[in-house]
Amino acid sequence: MNAQEIHRETIRKRSCLCVGLDTDLTRIPAHLHRLPDPVFTFNKGIIDATIDLAVAYKPNMAFYEALGTDGLRQLEKTVDYIRSRDPNVFIIADAKRGDIGNTAELYAKAFFLHYDFDAITLSPYMGKDSVEPFLQYPGKWVILLALTSNAGAHDFQLAELHNGEVLFERVIREAGSWGTIDNLMYVVGATRPEYLHKIRELAPDNFLLIPGVGAQGGSLESVLINGRNGMGGLLINNSRGIIYAGHGPDFADHARKAAEHMVARMR
Amino acid sequence: MNAQEIHRETIRKRSCLCVGLDTDLTRIPAHLHRLPDPVFTFNKGIIDATIDLAVAYKPNMAFYEALGTDGLRQLEKTVDYIRSRDPNVFIIADAKRGDIGNTAELYAKAFFLHYDFDAITLSPYMGKDSVEPFLQYPGKWVILLALTSNAGAHDFQLAELHNGEVLFERVIREAGSWGTIDNLMYVVGATRPEYLHKIRELAPDNFLLIPGVGAQGGSLESVLINGRNGMGGLLINNSRGIIYAGHGPDFADHARKAAEHMVARMR
Repeated sequence: MNAQEIHRETIRKRSCLCVGLDTDLTRIPAHLHRLPDPVFTFNKGIIDATIDLAVAYKPNMAFYEALGTDGLRQLEKTVDYIRSRDPNVFIIADAKRGDIGNTAELYAKAFFLHYDFDAITLSPYMGKDSVEPFLQYPGKWVILLALTSNAGAHDFQLAELHNGEVLFERVIREAGSWGTIDNLMYVVGATRPEYLHKIRELAPDNFLLIPGVGAQGGSLESVLINGRNGMGGLLINNSRGIIYAGHGPDFADHARKAAEHMVARMR
Repeated sequence: MNAQEIHRETIRKRSCLCVGLDTDLTRIPAHLHRLPDPVFTFNKGIIDATIDLAVAYKPNMAFYEALGTDGLRQLEKTVDYIRSRDPNVFIIADAKRGDIGNTAELYAKAFFLHYDFDAITLSPYMGKDSVEPFLQYPGKWVILLALTSNAGAHDFQLAELHNGEVLFERVIREAGSWGTIDNLMYVVGATRPEYLHKIRELAPDNFLLIPGVGAQGGSLESVLINGRNGMGGLLINNSRGIIYAGHGPDFADHARKAAEHMVARMR
């Protein structure tokens, strides 16, 4: 997909919602544990309940890797199921990888060819040659961590450089020459709306993936006010606030209500 | 394991060699492809040939993940096999993860409990709360990326901060208060020996994991001269230079010769 195609989906669905599939075996409803593939079955319920509201889904790799090979098999089924429900939905592997060139090539192959994700989140710490192999796949995307939503973002991302920039600004400025608006997005936490103006100066045309609305306390309204560009240019993620909105057999209904509420505020 | 126990192994084996198991299905000898579990069979050959010379093994997760669930099964067999050959060998998951707290907890569980690795490599970009969950496991280690061996290290790790430090120095200085010399190491590329003196000022007592000797061109001698502390304090990794030293049915003999040559230079 290119930026125009993602934009078209946000118009069609009147939504920039990304549903984070941080599916934790210890938090899903008890009745699912009696079924085969409980993680996939939970995800299928969430996907069926939100597919007309979400333009993107973002499985967080850790939750699947924590279950070993069985978790990854259920992730494969999840990605395939999303594709079968809506081939135009954008599917993000929240993997936060970052490694030297020959390793990055293998990760790109794994996430883009084996799993058929549209995008992967990467850490910028190891620099350009750790990112470039992912940018060689036409229609696939890198989503680079810039300013994250957690407390630890203060430790290094906001470190002041000798020229007055802070580190995450340097990351966006440098990475801007590695990719294009059709294959490079940035992660910017909703918990830091005060930086969105500055980020839009540095990356006026790139999509931003915004986590941190919901459980982490970020404000949807201030993200929309400060982060939008002419195209919209936002994918706003909510994981726990949607998928764990309910805890019983009707968990999918509660997830739909939470997603509807969020999309109504976007509209 | 604690630092003293790793130190004891380096004395016993007269070696600080870490063998990187970057096992690539496209580079292993052709005859292995006719056998079941070719990646594990290759690793077993390398392990048998080097177990008396290596104090650590470092499987790179990307190479196993690229093969999907089958690759991870062969990784599990590899870790179990190393443990069965020598319970005192230090086993590192080269995973370069880094994510928010609840996700970090899951990764810690996956790598330390499911796989029984002794250590995991992490990226510092997301800060303290992305690292701390891994430091809660007694006897387990975090190996934090400080200054990596690739060209992209220049992009951000060497960025100059307002107080004259460069970023990787800030990382080492900050992280020093997160862990102890018994659960925290740093990755420092052998391709940058000019920085080892400075690193030893900041982290005199921590072990350093040194990649980049061999295929990436770093000098073993200059690492030993500039990086040693009173305990030794070094784990020096070689991946491709050892495991791909040979290409035929006698690949393990060639790997042993390459490892012997490297350990002789250490001694």
